[in-house]
Amino acid sequence: MIKVTTIPGDGIGKEVMEAGIAVLDALDLNFDFIKSEAGDGYFQENGNTIPEETLKNAKNSQATLFGAITSTPGERSPIITLRKELDAFANLRPIKSFEGINSLYNDLDFLVVRENTEGLYSQVESYGDKEETIAISERIITKKASERIARFAFDKAISDERNKVTCVHKANVLKKTDGLFKRTFYDVAKSYPKIKSEDLYIDAVAMYLIKEPRSFDIIVTTNLFGDILSDEAAGLVGGLGLAPSGNIGDNNGLFEPVHGSAPDIAGKNISNPIAMILSSAMMLDFLDENYYANQITTAVENVLKARKIATPDLGGTAKTMDLANAVIEEINKQ
Amino acid sequence: MIKVTTIPGDGIGKEVMEAGIAVLDALDLNFDFIKSEAGDGYFQENGNTIPEETLKNAKNSQATLFGAITSTPGERSPIITLRKELDAFANLRPIKSFEGINSLYNDLDFLVVRENTEGLYSQVESYGDKEETIAISERIITKKASERIARFAFDKAISDERNKVTCVHKANVLKKTDGLFKRTFYDVAKSYPKIKSEDLYIDAVAMYLIKEPRSFDIIVTTNLFGDILSDEAAGLVGGLGLAPSGNIGDNNGLFEPVHGSAPDIAGKNISNPIAMILSSAMMLDFLDENYYANQITTAVENVLKARKIATPDLGGTAKTMDLANAVIEEINKQ
Ligand SMILES: CC(C)[C@H](C(=O)O)[C@@H](O)C(=O)O
Ligand SMILES: CC(C)[C@H](C(=O)O)[C@@H](O)C(=O)O
Repeated sequence: MIKVTTIPGDGIGKEVMEAGIAVLDALDLNFDFIKSEAGDGYFQENGNTIPEETLKNAKNSQATLFGAITSTPGERSPIITLRKELDAFANLRPIKSFEGINSLYNDLDFLVVRENTEGLYSQVESYGDKEETIAISERIITKKASERIARFAFDKAISDERNKVTCVHKANVLKKTDGLFKRTFYDVAKSYPKIKSEDLYIDAVAMYLIKEPRSFDIIVTTNLFGDILSDEAAGLVGGLGLAPSGNIGDNNGLFEPVHGSAPDIAGKNISNPIAMILSSAMMLDFLDENYYANQITTAVENVLKARKIATPDLGGTAKTMDLANAVIEEINKQ
Repeated sequence: MIKVTTIPGDGIGKEVMEAGIAVLDALDLNFDFIKSEAGDGYFQENGNTIPEETLKNAKNSQATLFGAITSTPGERSPIITLRKELDAFANLRPIKSFEGINSLYNDLDFLVVRENTEGLYSQVESYGDKEETIAISERIITKKASERIARFAFDKAISDERNKVTCVHKANVLKKTDGLFKRTFYDVAKSYPKIKSEDLYIDAVAMYLIKEPRSFDIIVTTNLFGDILSDEAAGLVGGLGLAPSGNIGDNNGLFEPVHGSAPDIAGKNISNPIAMILSSAMMLDFLDENYYANQITTAVENVLKARKIATPDLGGTAKTMDLANAVIEEINKQ
């Protein structure tokens, strides 16, 4: 019995979570899903965006699945709270082309590893005056977190048989914070002599992702730069409907599609569940259930390649569960 | 006589400046070019990256042309010093497709307006401990600068007959700083009822630029987000070799290619001078010499369209001055 906390959240988060769970249920594994609350809908009724119980469930499960939430103005995002509380310090975002998907590049396969606990997400903010005409956000970078994320990236290079890790920063302007991040990266690199290491500026990488994305293997970067680059890179291979992610800590894993709650299409059951389904596969990999993770990934690949069933974002007219059911059918064939 | 300070800088900065000046000299205008120093080469001989005299020249000219400089580790970048000293608060980066250039989109025409004086470029940084294991960079946003840049963007929409201004931010995380930026944007928008206004998250925009860049008209954003998005957007229309920019203040304008000093190709005279040449055209627009600005722009368009002469970044074998001379020939034909 694998104990998994599920947090559907708001909007299409609910739809894709239903689809993701249906796919997991189709595997020859037993899950105990603990459905938990968070998000703006919960806030409207209860005055906070994430209850203690959800945090407790997430901490006491083997892994957590997260759908998507709508931001509540003035409140801290529950996904940020979860990442911090679970100390899920590494945000892993694979960028992979799929056959059958119209995209700019059809042969991409790299990883964005995003530091997930500090930087511009430190949430140390203040006003410089009473009139609130000067605001300050602190970008805090520590050696500890920089070392941990660099190690994660290099370890991932070894386990995935990848050759190069690229540190992305803006140390020509952020001399102290990104100076520390970059210095620590190269210190860690010394312990991995077989893996190539290099560093590039964030602005240059934003451009290289478009012009020569094949040159990347693993990108490791600070929190907000990872947020930006992973969305950009997802745009290269078919968009957010296909982009999964994992928030990984020493004892915990939280898996979520990169997309948001999409209020504009929520409730119509036309959201693309693939990002959520692939996030579940990442969860199974994290739980060392690689056989079943591969079952899902292969099924998704086959469904996309066949081009028979597609949600509107992929140019079709299928419903969320149609696409999920196609994946389940493929799994049952295996 | 138009008094223009020229700062070639390092690497290919020198080559493209020579080309840019040659093109300006071909116009039926008289320039007084005041050649000034800055950059890493100057630092190696004199111990600082930009002398007082260069700042004085720039302040006392009608406009300044800047080539590119190589970063000096540990030193503040002279371009940041210049932007601050000239109070060139608006960084204007046009994104435009050219016929004859292989690029992802051949019909783009929008502007990135980047706040140029504060945000993560405030250069307030510190260490949290003696061992330098905690570093902090302050991201400072003021109402004054936010208002000024929003006004600049909306005024630009009116003068260029554009319809929409998109404010790009991360106010769901940077609640205070980007909250202030976004609030101020919508306050300013009220004075421009004929221009559409909207706001989007930086991560979403990084993706939309790839998937639906035609939806943008004017983007206005904070300093580092503008740095990232303008490089990304330049990648959509042929790369940095074609991307000009202007740093514009109430009394001053500083014009520079978006690219850097490119030490890897410097000295070979194979750098693409078009970004520098188009920056000179932006300078002429700023000086209300629109007729001559158009002469340059049209000449560049014709040369690119003809596909006869191209530097290596554009797939050819031409030298820097070959391309500049082709532009001059086109001007002479007009
Ligand atoms: C919702 C938001 C706080 C979040 C982030 O910025 O991390 C999202 O964009 C993401 O990438 O998971
Ligand atoms: C050289 C560097 C300091 C500069 C910046 O970050 O502004 C450059 O990237 C630019 O965009 O002009």
